[in-house]
Amino acid sequence: MASSNSEVKLRLWRNARLATMAPSLPGLGVFERGAVAVRGESIVFAGAEAELSSELSSEAEVIDCEGRWITPGLIDCHTHLVHAGNRANEFEMRLAGATYEEVARAGGGIVSSVRALRAASEDDLVRETLPRLDALIAEGVTTVEVKSGYGLDLENERKSLRAARRLGAERFVQVVTTFLGAHALPVEAADDKDRYISKVADEMLPAIAAEGLADTVDGFCEGIAFSPEQIARVFDAAQRLRLPVKLHADQLSDLGGAVLAARYHALSADHLEYIDEAGALAMSRAGTVAVMLPGAFYFIRETRKPPVALFRRHGVAMAVATDSNPGTSPMTSLLLAMNMAATLFGMTVEECLLGVTRNAAAALGMRGTIGTLEAGKKADLAIWNIESPAELVYRMGFNPLHARIWRGA
Amino acid sequence: MASSNSEVKLRLWRNARLATMAPSLPGLGVFERGAVAVRGESIVFAGAEAELSSELSSEAEVIDCEGRWITPGLIDCHTHLVHAGNRANEFEMRLAGATYEEVARAGGGIVSSVRALRAASEDDLVRETLPRLDALIAEGVTTVEVKSGYGLDLENERKSLRAARRLGAERFVQVVTTFLGAHALPVEAADDKDRYISKVADEMLPAIAAEGLADTVDGFCEGIAFSPEQIARVFDAAQRLRLPVKLHADQLSDLGGAVLAARYHALSADHLEYIDEAGALAMSRAGTVAVMLPGAFYFIRETRKPPVALFRRHGVAMAVATDSNPGTSPMTSLLLAMNMAATLFGMTVEECLLGVTRNAAAALGMRGTIGTLEAGKKADLAIWNIESPAELVYRMGFNPLHARIWRGA
Ligand SMILES: [Zn+2]
Ligand SMILES: [Zn+2]
Repeated sequence: MASSNSEVKLRLWRNARLATMAPSLPGLGVFERGAVAVRGESIVFAGAEAELSSELSSEAEVIDCEGRWITPGLIDCHTHLVHAGNRANEFEMRLAGATYEEVARAGGGIVSSVRALRAASEDDLVRETLPRLDALIAEGVTTVEVKSGYGLDLENERKSLRAARRLGAERFVQVVTTFLGAHALPVEAADDKDRYISKVADEMLPAIAAEGLADTVDGFCEGIAFSPEQIARVFDAAQRLRLPVKLHADQLSDLGGAVLAARYHALSADHLEYIDEAGALAMSRAGTVAVMLPGAFYFIRETRKPPVALFRRHGVAMAVATDSNPGTSPMTSLLLAMNMAATLFGMTVEECLLGVTRNAAAALGMRGTIGTLEAGKKADLAIWNIESPAELVYRMGFNPLHARIWRGA
Repeated sequence: MASSNSEVKLRLWRNARLATMAPSLPGLGVFERGAVAVRGESIVFAGAEAELSSELSSEAEVIDCEGRWITPGLIDCHTHLVHAGNRANEFEMRLAGATYEEVARAGGGIVSSVRALRAASEDDLVRETLPRLDALIAEGVTTVEVKSGYGLDLENERKSLRAARRLGAERFVQVVTTFLGAHALPVEAADDKDRYISKVADEMLPAIAAEGLADTVDGFCEGIAFSPEQIARVFDAAQRLRLPVKLHADQLSDLGGAVLAARYHALSADHLEYIDEAGALAMSRAGTVAVMLPGAFYFIRETRKPPVALFRRHGVAMAVATDSNPGTSPMTSLLLAMNMAATLFGMTVEECLLGVTRNAAAALGMRGTIGTLEAGKKADLAIWNIESPAELVYRMGFNPLHARIWRGA
């Protein structure tokens, strides 16, 4: 069964229906009688089985998919997966009628996540995060973005990102790390946002970058977080270090975050409930992906939806992610995030599925290597017990994954 | 390790935190240092470990729970789990902008589920339903209610209920069956609702009851389904056969369904978005449980919530269920249903947890045997990797089940 004229194993998934997500094809890029051939870690063929070269089909170890659907491995392009503890207590208090002030007085809010993360060791963080990562992996996720942002000082941000990197060694998954020092103001900064931002831009980020701990740099541009001017200082620092940026933008108000992100050619601007037309236009021109985070919208009972129609009109690519985090989206199901993007935001099935594959890859600057089933891409596959791709979006709390292939194995 | 002075095995789960849900205790009936002793299929002790008799602790096979939480096994008290096919296509069309008429013209709506169910064999139904049942079981569900209602003639309703009964033989789970002949009007009834209801009440139900296929009888009281007068004829027939009733009531409009249900001492009235105060009062007096189905509310983008405050004011017990069905709630996660009941309906953590245990048992007429951890109850336990019960409601798409015990094993 093994490859004869090569040291690298050739494997062939045949008798499959493919949703390749290839940009050269319409819609989901479907092949009803498809096959995927993989040499080592890479796809060498994905398309109609009838087009397969006899060389490939004769040499390969063959897996009969019995008509199952294959999609690219799913990509969760926005998470805060590495964190310590949970905020179920806060959730419970809020439902019992507590005000935000009462929750804060009881030690709730992001400060509680910062306190818990600082108290945890790197080993603690890895151990606590793995079950959440495993939940994503069980649904066919092969790439996951993980942000820091609960450490808020160099030592603890570094610890978070080291833990994130270790996740990728503990499991067969690609972890993309994001430095989010500009997530919130730590208590010890005593309300001096400018001074904290100087620390983020001039001290923390260069040290993080020197250690190779961050693949991208993110910020939270909001009244309760940082101003566009403050975020711009972080982005300037990222540019000097040649790190791509992304931004939590226009979630609770319109501060022009999307325009700012586009100005820095951000990979993505995320949330965007309050974006205006100028923001969408700027993102379109810059090729910045709009990352939809319906879990947070749902969990905090936001009522203003991101303007999906506006993104369509201006050709802004949309991704969908879990935003997995303890305060506003304790969600570890990318399938559920798709269902919410459809049900709550009105995204189509096609938009949801492109949003967790091709467009999620773009949101991570990885369009060239993952997110579609095409020759040359990494062999990250999800194989599903479904009759149609729409089922992946339609169901709630059901996981039809049959098998998951990461880097060809 | 085995019991010495009895043929029936004695097992002891110790070093646990218990949420017993016992009605004699406040809130969730918590014991921080608790133990559950089980002889055969039944609980013989649940409470503080310190109160355990030395006899029980010396004889039993001991399982150390290492501080984990134990709740009663979860109960999904309202599902349409036995069905054929799915309606993902309809969901996709609707998101792409199709009107209800266009969906109907394309063969969508409940008629498509009826057509698919009629075409399926009993074996097909069992095989197709098991993965959905397994998803519920994986979350600690030990009792599940399953309705008919896609057959709409004797032969096909019987087939559905036989398939439902077989689920209970295929898995370690208790299946409670409900005859829902009055779910929708079949095409062949040619718009004659009264004539179809006569058939349901006078022919189908007696035959179903004679075969022992139905534990309870349900109806759908709504403009698009049947009138209160028509439902009353079905309920009269159920009363003659000594079968308890329940009702899909006041979901889309207020037809007085809750009052009707209460008049027949229904076990439950379900949905209830449009119930009025008279309905809540009647339910309170009759001891009828209000079953909240947030999955359907969410999926069909309903905006009017069931009046939780009204139920509280009148002391109406509330349950929470998945309503798992292909048309309006393709949901197979009772944990997610709880999260939606909290997030969308404002139910508290305590209400949600009582709603999938003690009150769900009441909605099935099984208050005496399941739904709490108390001596004399069936030994159905769910053991969780959580720090607090609130986590079961707070998370989205995460399953912290450590172990599930059904009837002591
Ligand atoms: Zn975020
Ligand atoms: Zn129902």
